Amino acid sequence: MPAASTPSLDIATLSAAYASGRLRPTQVVDLVLRRLEQAGDDKVWIHRPPAAALRRRAVDLEALSPDQRAGLPLFGIPFAVKDNIDVAGQPTTAACPDFAYEAKAHAGVVARLLAAGAILVGKTNMDQFATGLVGVRSPYGVARNPFDPEVIPGGSSSGSAVAVAAGMVSFSLGTDTAGSGRVPAGFNNIVGLKPTKGLIGTSGVVPACRSLDCVSVFGLTVEDCMHVLKVAAGADPADPFSRVAPPMATAPAKGRRMGIPAPDQLRFFGDGPAKALYRDAVDRARDLGWTVEEIDFTPFAEAAELLYSGPWVAERTAAVGDFIAAHPESALEVTRKIIMGGAGRSAVEAFRATYRLEELRQRAQAQWQRMDLLLLPTSGTIYRIDEVMADPIATNTNLGAYTNFVNLLDLCAVAVPAGFRPDGLPFGVTVMAPAFAESLAAEAAAELHRSAGLSLGATGHAMPAARAIPGEDARLLRLMVVGGHLSGQPLNHQLTGLGARLVECGRTAPVYRLFALPGLPRRPGMVRVAKDGVAVEGEIWEMTPDAFGRFVAAIPAPLGVGSVEMADGSRVCGFLCEAVATEGTEDISSFGGWRAFIASAGD
Amino acid sequence: MPAASTPSLDIATLSAAYASGRLRPTQVVDLVLRRLEQAGDDKVWIHRPPAAALRRRAVDLEALSPDQRAGLPLFGIPFAVKDNIDVAGQPTTAACPDFAYEAKAHAGVVARLLAAGAILVGKTNMDQFATGLVGVRSPYGVARNPFDPEVIPGGSSSGSAVAVAAGMVSFSLGTDTAGSGRVPAGFNNIVGLKPTKGLIGTSGVVPACRSLDCVSVFGLTVEDCMHVLKVAAGADPADPFSRVAPPMATAPAKGRRMGIPAPDQLRFFGDGPAKALYRDAVDRARDLGWTVEEIDFTPFAEAAELLYSGPWVAERTAAVGDFIAAHPESALEVTRKIIMGGAGRSAVEAFRATYRLEELRQRAQAQWQRMDLLLLPTSGTIYRIDEVMADPIATNTNLGAYTNFVNLLDLCAVAVPAGFRPDGLPFGVTVMAPAFAESLAAEAAAELHRSAGLSLGATGHAMPAARAIPGEDARLLRLMVVGGHLSGQPLNHQLTGLGARLVECGRTAPVYRLFALPGLPRRPGMVRVAKDGVAVEGEIWEMTPDAFGRFVAAIPAPLGVGSVEMADGSRVCGFLCEAVATEGTEDISSFGGWRAFIASAGD
Repeated sequence: MPAASTPSLDIATLSAAYASGRLRPTQVVDLVLRRLEQAGDDKVWIHRPPAAALRRRAVDLEALSPDQRAGLPLFGIPFAVKDNIDVAGQPTTAACPDFAYEAKAHAGVVARLLAAGAILVGKTNMDQFATGLVGVRSPYGVARNPFDPEVIPGGSSSGSAVAVAAGMVSFSLGTDTAGSGRVPAGFNNIVGLKPTKGLIGTSGVVPACRSLDCVSVFGLTVEDCMHVLKVAAGADPADPFSRVAPPMATAPAKGRRMGIPAPDQLRFFGDGPAKALYRDAVDRARDLGWTVEEIDFTPFAEAAELLYSGPWVAERTAAVGDFIAAHPESALEVTRKIIMGGAGRSAVEAFRATYRLEELRQRAQAQWQRMDLLLLPTSGTIYRIDEVMADPIATNTNLGAYTNFVNLLDLCAVAVPAGFRPDGLPFGVTVMAPAFAESLAAEAAAELHRSAGLSLGATGHAMPAARAIPGEDARLLRLMVVGGHLSGQPLNHQLTGLGARLVECGRTAPVYRLFALPGLPRRPGMVRVAKDGVAVEGEIWEMTPDAFGRFVAAIPAPLGVGSVEMADGSRVCGFLCEAVATEGTEDISSFGGWRAFIASAGD
Repeated sequence: MPAASTPSLDIATLSAAYASGRLRPTQVVDLVLRRLEQAGDDKVWIHRPPAAALRRRAVDLEALSPDQRAGLPLFGIPFAVKDNIDVAGQPTTAACPDFAYEAKAHAGVVARLLAAGAILVGKTNMDQFATGLVGVRSPYGVARNPFDPEVIPGGSSSGSAVAVAAGMVSFSLGTDTAGSGRVPAGFNNIVGLKPTKGLIGTSGVVPACRSLDCVSVFGLTVEDCMHVLKVAAGADPADPFSRVAPPMATAPAKGRRMGIPAPDQLRFFGDGPAKALYRDAVDRARDLGWTVEEIDFTPFAEAAELLYSGPWVAERTAAVGDFIAAHPESALEVTRKIIMGGAGRSAVEAFRATYRLEELRQRAQAQWQRMDLLLLPTSGTIYRIDEVMADPIATNTNLGAYTNFVNLLDLCAVAVPAGFRPDGLPFGVTVMAPAFAESLAAEAAAELHRSAGLSLGATGHAMPAARAIPGEDARLLRLMVVGGHLSGQPLNHQLTGLGARLVECGRTAPVYRLFALPGLPRRPGMVRVAKDGVAVEGEIWEMTPDAFGRFVAAIPAPLGVGSVEMADGSRVCGFLCEAVATEGTEDISSFGGWRAFIASAGD
């Protein structure tokens, strides 16, 4: 384990050190090479380019001008790539030596990362053909869990997770079909970001289940993973499943509803410490200001079962079944059995399972009406290598109880460290959100991670200062209402009907006058004045830009929406009135607000 | 064929006659019963409730108060239902007598139509198990094409189409998996609306391919079909594929880009008259003001082939394969062969086909970048019954060349009459649009239909006056700008960056004064005044509610958006200024607009 006295490789720290001139890429490459040497035969890597190639890349980066560097969001950042993802000129094995081929081109995602200035350290070990959540199904050995070599690293992206945890790279790519980008994060005290399906293109990735496969990101902090996602995401013309995030409006995560399963729906497989650590995480979420809501986990659990019991395994057969059929001895026995199990499934079964999935999706949707995020254990327990060897299928299935359904139900997920068990092994939780809401999940996950008070991975380094999550451009818009749209007033339904929600009550700066306009329904008109202004009571509501646009467009004269100055000097959009329309009307400013006036009028 | 002297049953005409008191539901029921009797053994119906039941329903409707009637959008409108859709207490056969069962409850869509005041006339003939586009695969005979009894009616929703064309009902329900709701419309000179998948729930419908099945609407006019859709659409909790349309903002259809295949990609199967009629329709589209764009039809054609060559037939096996396996003699030979053909397909094949479909979807998407609508023949040709009998598979396949891909690619479609061939047989074209854009497709289809100058179905009745298409609630929003956002001015990019487009130039009513506000960039402030107002020049821009919301929320004080009175007395959203902010600033009203002021100032 590297000493905490050497620099942390988290992207924030490294980028700051580069920017200040305290570090240069060649020094970081030397540091990485030293750590690799110290780690010895840790079974983390399947292939690494020669040290000279890394040094050459670092030298090339150092030759760039400051302007050129500024355009590279991953300038000098070392990373690792799971060995089912193509790197041009290097072998791709998918942990099956006989399957190996030399990649002619970079996978789309690798090309993006390299173009952003990242330094590729190597290709990592994995469960063969990305089939497994354990990290022990590889002819290249078991990547050494830095917390206990007797314990599994988790899989299938085992090497990528350990490389980050052990401080050998800043981040790494995994893949995640059933949990392969999250389970290993939980077992290595690091962050695993499983983005929405299609957000990172999968061109140049050996498929597992093509309709479900995601490229995932491991990092030491949530902010780092989201930073990498920003670079890695985007349309991939060579991936038919590629999707681009629609413009989304998300409110700040804090205070939102965080769903948790009813207690009797949680499964820890007899692991008391895991159960206690999950409960602690829920308590922390509550303390941090989230609203914890118990939801019905059944549709999620049933979808998780469907993945393994259903016909999706035929996607694995479709991907590499022909190879395994032609070379049965080339695959591990457990892997061969699983993958070839799909050959006997019928199209009728496949379609029926998709019908069942649609039912479950609708039932899950009903639960999403009650929550904004879902907080779960990343895995219910952790296993020693010998336990997995003794019962390879059941242990693997148990590890997927909280991960298998995520891609089937089109969710995104951020797995974060949540504490250590008394035996020194890490435990993680995962924050899930609907498709394309990774910023929301990441905000919550980052706060939960920070509140756990842990050091990074197995590096001993402390968490760097919090940074804003790079999120969607669109946020919810706020509107101050002062009259008929106030809660309980006759026009309030116009707001609630658009999905708006009350954020806070507030009072303007004392620069307005309020008038009772003639007509029905009775409405106030608020006008800014140069002197003798009063503060006016109102409510601030929040809604999507779409709802905001519809609402504003329907406001009749003489009212409109402008920028209202609040008591604290801030500005918020709010109702204003054309001054000319208030001439000759009743000045009700002395009431300080519409409600007080209405009450006085006996309405 | 009913004489044109009796009333047309199109919904617009019928509803107007009810509203004026010129007709009562009992009279319409009697008219319908007379027409049914005149039609004789036309093989249109599989089951009809007794005449007494229809009369009772009409009497019940007549007993309603005017207020109650006003709440029933289909008050007294007679309709037919394809016999694979459940009506409580009536048999559902799917055109297979041995399969028949008595439905315990209405299909969701039927319940909605009846609750809206419609009168169910009966259940219609169809290709057995909705498998076919020909309308001859039924043990109940071939529904008689009202234009030529030797010619196929089209299928699978054959009886429902003929019932509308022959003036026996105002509208009817079909189902549409591969074209069953459109091909018969083309062969009967009527309109066939195939809504977006999931928009009308399919609970209580015998499945064909569950992932693709749609309930469709036949009517005499596009407006009628859209009116029915408004009633029929909505969340169906018992249908896992049910979807609710997201709020959509669509500009008026007119002038948009209408894609057509390159000439060598069109297939008319040797049918010269059909080819000429399609060319005429394209010419009319151009004359009507659409921009006709040649696109690459290949991905659509390949998706069409994929439906029949691929594993989706296994969905039919999943739906009724168990029944057919148990009762092989109960199904028609051609139907049995097709449906049981899915039993041999593997899950691997099924998944591979979905991968292929995703590729085609992306390629089709690229073509959608070049068009807003797609205009195609509904079918490339029409067949006599004996031609189909002689070659049942190939003729059926040919008929689906322009329909098969629509549900696979998640499009909606409106089939409309487009003229008659020299032999007196009808020809139709179909306007397609992306999912949930039926209003856009319907606007274009209605104009094309109207421009063809045809009478309705086989009724001899003339087309009623045009009505507005009942569309999405959300349309583009308009905003009047009077200063820095005008074309060519420094802030105009804020509008264009949000995708806004200039609609027209305009001038306010003479009730405003214009001021030059201090600060940079220089901005005008427009304030309504009680006297001495002037008209102010400006531009009206159009944008989505989302863009409108973002734009308005970003407007800094003292500006805002309110309702501006235009020279013609109309109102439009537009920039207004807080009156207080104009005190002591330069009054530039005499320039009549910002541009004139800028020019005078030598800017």
